[in-house]
Amino acid sequence: MSTKYVYTFGDGKAEGKADMKNLLGGKGANLAEMNLIGVPVPAGFTITTDVCTDYNKLGKDAVVAMIKEQVEAAVADTEKAMNAKFDAKEGFPLLLSVRSGARASMPGMMNTVLNLGMNDDTVKIVAEQSGNEKFAYDSYRRFIHMYGDVVMGVEAEEGQHNPFEVVLDKLKEAKGYKLDTELTVEDLKELVEGYKVVVREHAGVDFPTCPWEQLWGSVCAVFDSWDTERAILYRRMEGIPDDWGTAVNVQAMVYGNMGETSATGVCFSRDAATGEDQFNGEYLINAQGEDVVAGVRTPLEITLVGSKRWAERGGVSEEARKADFLSMEEAMPELYKELDTIQQKLEDHYSDMQDMEFTIQQGKLWMLQTRSGKRTGAAMVKMAVDMLEQGMIDENTAILRQEPNKLDELLHPVFEKSALEAAKELSKGLPASPGAATGQIVFSAEAAEEWAAAGKKVILVRRETSPEDLKGMYAAEGILTERGGMTSHAAVVARGMGKCCISSAAGTLVTGSSMTINGVEYKEGDFISLNGTTGIVYEGKVATITPSLDGDFGKVMDMSERNTRMYVRTNADTPADAKTAREFGAKGIGLCRTEHMFFEGDKIWKMREMILAEDVQGRKEALAKLLPVQREDFSGILEAMDGFGVTIRLLDPPLHEFTPNDAESQKEMAEKLGVSVEEVAKKVESLHEFNPMLGHRGCRLGNTYPEITEMQARAILEAACDLKAKGKDPKPEIMVPLIGTIKEFKMQEEIIREIAAAVFAEKGIEVDFLVGTMIEIPRAALTADQIAEHAEFFSFGTNDLTQMGFGYSRDDAGKFLPIYIEKGILKNDPFQVLDQEGIGQLVRMGCEKGRSTRKDIKLGICGEHGGEPSSVEFCNSVGMEYVSCSPFRVPIARLAAAQANLKQN
Amino acid sequence: MSTKYVYTFGDGKAEGKADMKNLLGGKGANLAEMNLIGVPVPAGFTITTDVCTDYNKLGKDAVVAMIKEQVEAAVADTEKAMNAKFDAKEGFPLLLSVRSGARASMPGMMNTVLNLGMNDDTVKIVAEQSGNEKFAYDSYRRFIHMYGDVVMGVEAEEGQHNPFEVVLDKLKEAKGYKLDTELTVEDLKELVEGYKVVVREHAGVDFPTCPWEQLWGSVCAVFDSWDTERAILYRRMEGIPDDWGTAVNVQAMVYGNMGETSATGVCFSRDAATGEDQFNGEYLINAQGEDVVAGVRTPLEITLVGSKRWAERGGVSEEARKADFLSMEEAMPELYKELDTIQQKLEDHYSDMQDMEFTIQQGKLWMLQTRSGKRTGAAMVKMAVDMLEQGMIDENTAILRQEPNKLDELLHPVFEKSALEAAKELSKGLPASPGAATGQIVFSAEAAEEWAAAGKKVILVRRETSPEDLKGMYAAEGILTERGGMTSHAAVVARGMGKCCISSAAGTLVTGSSMTINGVEYKEGDFISLNGTTGIVYEGKVATITPSLDGDFGKVMDMSERNTRMYVRTNADTPADAKTAREFGAKGIGLCRTEHMFFEGDKIWKMREMILAEDVQGRKEALAKLLPVQREDFSGILEAMDGFGVTIRLLDPPLHEFTPNDAESQKEMAEKLGVSVEEVAKKVESLHEFNPMLGHRGCRLGNTYPEITEMQARAILEAACDLKAKGKDPKPEIMVPLIGTIKEFKMQEEIIREIAAAVFAEKGIEVDFLVGTMIEIPRAALTADQIAEHAEFFSFGTNDLTQMGFGYSRDDAGKFLPIYIEKGILKNDPFQVLDQEGIGQLVRMGCEKGRSTRKDIKLGICGEHGGEPSSVEFCNSVGMEYVSCSPFRVPIARLAAAQANLKQN
Repeated sequence: MSTKYVYTFGDGKAEGKADMKNLLGGKGANLAEMNLIGVPVPAGFTITTDVCTDYNKLGKDAVVAMIKEQVEAAVADTEKAMNAKFDAKEGFPLLLSVRSGARASMPGMMNTVLNLGMNDDTVKIVAEQSGNEKFAYDSYRRFIHMYGDVVMGVEAEEGQHNPFEVVLDKLKEAKGYKLDTELTVEDLKELVEGYKVVVREHAGVDFPTCPWEQLWGSVCAVFDSWDTERAILYRRMEGIPDDWGTAVNVQAMVYGNMGETSATGVCFSRDAATGEDQFNGEYLINAQGEDVVAGVRTPLEITLVGSKRWAERGGVSEEARKADFLSMEEAMPELYKELDTIQQKLEDHYSDMQDMEFTIQQGKLWMLQTRSGKRTGAAMVKMAVDMLEQGMIDENTAILRQEPNKLDELLHPVFEKSALEAAKELSKGLPASPGAATGQIVFSAEAAEEWAAAGKKVILVRRETSPEDLKGMYAAEGILTERGGMTSHAAVVARGMGKCCISSAAGTLVTGSSMTINGVEYKEGDFISLNGTTGIVYEGKVATITPSLDGDFGKVMDMSERNTRMYVRTNADTPADAKTAREFGAKGIGLCRTEHMFFEGDKIWKMREMILAEDVQGRKEALAKLLPVQREDFSGILEAMDGFGVTIRLLDPPLHEFTPNDAESQKEMAEKLGVSVEEVAKKVESLHEFNPMLGHRGCRLGNTYPEITEMQARAILEAACDLKAKGKDPKPEIMVPLIGTIKEFKMQEEIIREIAAAVFAEKGIEVDFLVGTMIEIPRAALTADQIAEHAEFFSFGTNDLTQMGFGYSRDDAGKFLPIYIEKGILKNDPFQVLDQEGIGQLVRMGCEKGRSTRKDIKLGICGEHGGEPSSVEFCNSVGMEYVSCSPFRVPIARLAAAQANLKQN
Repeated sequence: MSTKYVYTFGDGKAEGKADMKNLLGGKGANLAEMNLIGVPVPAGFTITTDVCTDYNKLGKDAVVAMIKEQVEAAVADTEKAMNAKFDAKEGFPLLLSVRSGARASMPGMMNTVLNLGMNDDTVKIVAEQSGNEKFAYDSYRRFIHMYGDVVMGVEAEEGQHNPFEVVLDKLKEAKGYKLDTELTVEDLKELVEGYKVVVREHAGVDFPTCPWEQLWGSVCAVFDSWDTERAILYRRMEGIPDDWGTAVNVQAMVYGNMGETSATGVCFSRDAATGEDQFNGEYLINAQGEDVVAGVRTPLEITLVGSKRWAERGGVSEEARKADFLSMEEAMPELYKELDTIQQKLEDHYSDMQDMEFTIQQGKLWMLQTRSGKRTGAAMVKMAVDMLEQGMIDENTAILRQEPNKLDELLHPVFEKSALEAAKELSKGLPASPGAATGQIVFSAEAAEEWAAAGKKVILVRRETSPEDLKGMYAAEGILTERGGMTSHAAVVARGMGKCCISSAAGTLVTGSSMTINGVEYKEGDFISLNGTTGIVYEGKVATITPSLDGDFGKVMDMSERNTRMYVRTNADTPADAKTAREFGAKGIGLCRTEHMFFEGDKIWKMREMILAEDVQGRKEALAKLLPVQREDFSGILEAMDGFGVTIRLLDPPLHEFTPNDAESQKEMAEKLGVSVEEVAKKVESLHEFNPMLGHRGCRLGNTYPEITEMQARAILEAACDLKAKGKDPKPEIMVPLIGTIKEFKMQEEIIREIAAAVFAEKGIEVDFLVGTMIEIPRAALTADQIAEHAEFFSFGTNDLTQMGFGYSRDDAGKFLPIYIEKGILKNDPFQVLDQEGIGQLVRMGCEKGRSTRKDIKLGICGEHGGEPSSVEFCNSVGMEYVSCSPFRVPIARLAAAQANLKQN
């Protein structure tokens, strides 16, 4: 038997089926499958992906010869199924579409030809049979344009307009038309002739009138489009192998614009916005698919219930509705019933909400496409829970089908739909922290606090934020910054707080007391609104609604809990954040940054006193003043997470982050601390670093100024002892930052254990605690076996590991990262999505080497990646015990962790 | 048979031998060996290292009981060999020394007791027998002090002086003495009694008078000292296992101060300064070993020829010499002959120049110690060549015995010895680049050029240097900077030029036009002198001499050449440097930094024009002006290294390095380029980065501004084509810097290959060239397999790899690296000595992964480490083809490469 190159489908029969995706491509397999389950699909056939591979090896002529016979037989089958004739001299002509269809979706990357089979003869028959001459000639001229473009290579020369469009524009100008719909039949006939001239002039040959020639030209054009530059680039980006090839789907055209018994529409088996189990959709009588989406005519509701809701929303009376806006259920009750049955069948078959396209051609319903429908976060959750309860899917499927990132939509306020539609966009920036916020502009943290205290809702607008703005950020509804990326201070802190934030807003210029957006000035007190999910800034007030975390969300979290191996911690520096995260299901703190605490209230002055001290003695005195306040900080955090592990990182940032740079603040500092301005300026200068990221910070501080570690260890352990004395169950895990060598760790560990012994002796009480380290320096990952001999836990600081592993400064990468992503050098921002290929090797190495010397070492991650689903999956694969992320990412991480566990088991 | 714990030696017999180092320690094995070859050594015995291990396990009492019998027998043997009695009531008393002796040398780490056996009885006999009562009592009081300190734990209390010294000082004060030598016999007797009181008061028991008790106390004290904190720390630092343990050597004391037939001295079998094959040394009659080194009496020459030379140098007449400064050869001709025979025997036996200590006690010669002698670089080279030619050693030994770093001494000017002795030290800084220089101070590069053009020798003094100072550095004899480390700009560039440089000179403050050192001001034109090898700054002129590279040096290089696998390239940016390096034996350039070229003459303005350009077109226009000058640069370099590979790195530093920061220079820039000052300031600000090290540089420039790569590739390839047309053999290797992902490389590679095709077509000539990359980002090492699919060579940029792998900014690490090294957290500065444990893993991984996808990939190193011997050895072990270093390190690297090959084969 000779090889089968062509698989036909139609009339309830098909030679292929759903699981033949590799051979037939996704679209071809799906068309076959729909036929097999009894869904009416326009007949046609699929040329296999293997033929594409042969095409690239053997060339056009050999392949055409090879498949000619099978294609001709398949066309004959199609003619029969559709009761139409290809190359018809009489009867209804069979018009065809020719589309690509690879294994993996490559949207818009390859060629498509529609209305194939049109020529000077068939157009007349179509006009006659459809009773719609305008439709016939419009289809014909569109075909010439598309075929000329795709198959014959007629295109605009450099600096010129597309030659077909030039002809069209000229005609419209001559006739004074604005819209294409104004074209008359005579105009269209003139265009057909004009387009033929264009083809002759540009391609050097006549437009082919023979349908068979048209068909072969189109099939080959689809194969050719597999290897265009943009298709190759797309495959590289998506990791699709070049040798997969594309199938070609040849299918009968059907038309919804052949009179009042024809129609076209899109429909959904459930509500994509709310998740409600209610069939819905829109349709138009005597229209083409593009009319439904183009918005020239208002599409109507398919179901009666939908139609009535629509009327109610729009204030349309039942009379008016019945007169002008009849639902398909009412207008075409038989066809509606058929459609309803089909949608139910498709949803049942695919066990998921379907997004379908259909066309009714002269009273006959055809399904053109079905696919799993896109949905909002709320709908995603509801559908999964409903389908599970309806017995359509099992728990694994319910978990795996959800996109963790979409849970975010359920956790933050959103704008009211109608209010949003009316709002005026001012600018677009980076969606630095999700949610919606509306309020009055303030330009300083102090003002934010004051106005908020006075009961006003404010948006804090800053050039960029610094740790000194923390309280103002708390007080504000949202934050807008002129500068900074997705991982700027503002972005990171806002995400941690669950506050909406937009950074790097385009066209925005912020001075101390005003802001201009694209030249328009906004002052303190003016209202603006921010959508941190999209990055769009709106003028004035836009009403928001706070979504409630209803039962379905809880059910999804419970399912995740049952199916996860890793648990989720949170990155939190305050008891309030810890509490929020705990409500979201966090089981402990993966990263408590002590430095943020030093910016609150008066603490900064004690810190600065320590920095200014000239010797150990002076530093110890200043640190002694910090001890009680630090102890209080830690007590609050440990109590908020009582019973769960709390990883507290020792002081990490370089000391210059605590000193002011401007002359005025230095003067203030000098006065407050009773030293000369020169002394302050000199100290600040001496702290300056060329690359602070790689400078005197982390354990390098603790090892050069051991008294800082002593104070912090004491504050943590005293707080823990006091809590335990009160009957609480504090579980501190002391984390030494920025370890690069085992000796650095050991020196810090020794200090901590000495202090612990002293504190326990003083208090007469002991608490369990761990001493471990952040793995954030490449060398630490490389020597993790040595480090694990002493460290009881590792927390992977993938932010810094990414900075050093890539050699990218997060603060500066804005100069080239966007270009790198645009050019496809990087697929993702590696600060958002863990680079598993490179940095992931260091993480894996760190885990494996760590376990090699300490079998039960506690492994977790506390970088930004801990709340990013693909990174969470990676963490599961390398055997981490937990991931840690900002409070508002906890539910996402929990779902992602469960998915990872299900996928990897 | 019971275990042997004690090994005796003496009288030409020994129970141990040289290869029993593990059991007897280095010293014990050596003492045994000397006996065996017939060298007269004071008799004694060695308690094995195994006993030390037992001691730590079983404790003092058990071990003493265990070895008591064997020790007593060994003492008896020693008594016999020395014809003396331990615990003597009559006859000459046997006095002993007790010393540690581990497998590896641990100088000064463990305890020693001398003169053991002294008590109120024996001191009298010693006084009588030696006829020197003062000697006897002085030995006695020294013994009490040492024993009290080492064995009985008598030490100073906090804040107090040592109690023995307090007694001594009181006595001297009462008597009005300044020197210990003024003490009379009566004084010494008083001290003995006083010291006994000190012991009683501090230790709570009487000083033990029984020699056996003294012996056991001392032996145990040596074992105890194995586990003191400082000994443990030292072992950690040096990687000596804790379980090796130390042996204990007990040996008869001999005295050179027992009258005119006694003497003591040190001698060398060859000249340690010049390498001349001439026995030499110094001795003193009636003196102790410490007198020779203490400088209280002037020691005399051992040989007649040495004595005559000494007299000539010092202007001492032959009469005076014969009267007062007789050589040992003349004064004690028989003993001299015996010593000469022994020194020859020892040199022959150890096949190396020996550094020996001897004592003559009442006409009897005793050898106390022999070891391979330290030597200067010149002596090292000459001895190796001489011994090879004398057939004493083979070529492998001649190569392996040399310290590569010492070759450096042969390549740079040095101070005249006598001139140096008279010179006044002003400050000490980091020995940033070796050699000696003397000249007049200038404070700017321009002044350096002007003064040098006027024929003056100048020292360029700067706060720190920048690329703009290059020409001034060339013009100067040496460079002194207030700031910067061993890898600061000044240090790196100076080493490259072979110029002497001292950085971070202590107490130095440099302003624009003057310098103060510890408060004293130095102005332009004042003379200073620098020793870049030691880091010492001298006042005024100090005469220098330029060593010539004589025949022996060449012979060592030839030997290295014959025995190496790797070859050596140089890091050079100019034809002059390339030429120098080629003369030193460099076979190619491993790193030619193009950015330095942009600072010469007018090029900086074209560069700045490019930076200021607003769009691609503007940049291309400015680059077009740079093209011809770059072509000329490359032509010069390629021609200077004709026939050898020249690795040219594309533009690497961030653009802000080419723009001025101060207002005045910005104004100059604005005027020169015809733009507003604001525009310049804005541009400079926009180029500012928080961590430029991790910012917009390297291939990130080439990938965001491809036109820069285009220009540089064109300049390189046009230069190569033109040279080939002239019959030369240029071998350019184009290196893309800072690659982190394969896509970055491919984009740059494509540009280069396109330009190459265009240039070859235009010129009608083709040259072979390679395209490769620097592996300097951790991620590049981790994904080297992918990168090697396209890159034809890897050059390991271990400077940046160390920066990113450790997370240390070279420019800022000065704040903690010195403390880290002092505290033992790091053994070496990882920027000087490659961290094989951590960063080495990345290098090894890069090599292995690179070869996994491109078997014949060319591998080399171009970081500072390429000229550091232990790093060179590592490079050989991972299979690199070459190492590259600054021109003046080339000979060192060549020798190190040969050593590595011999060691690893």
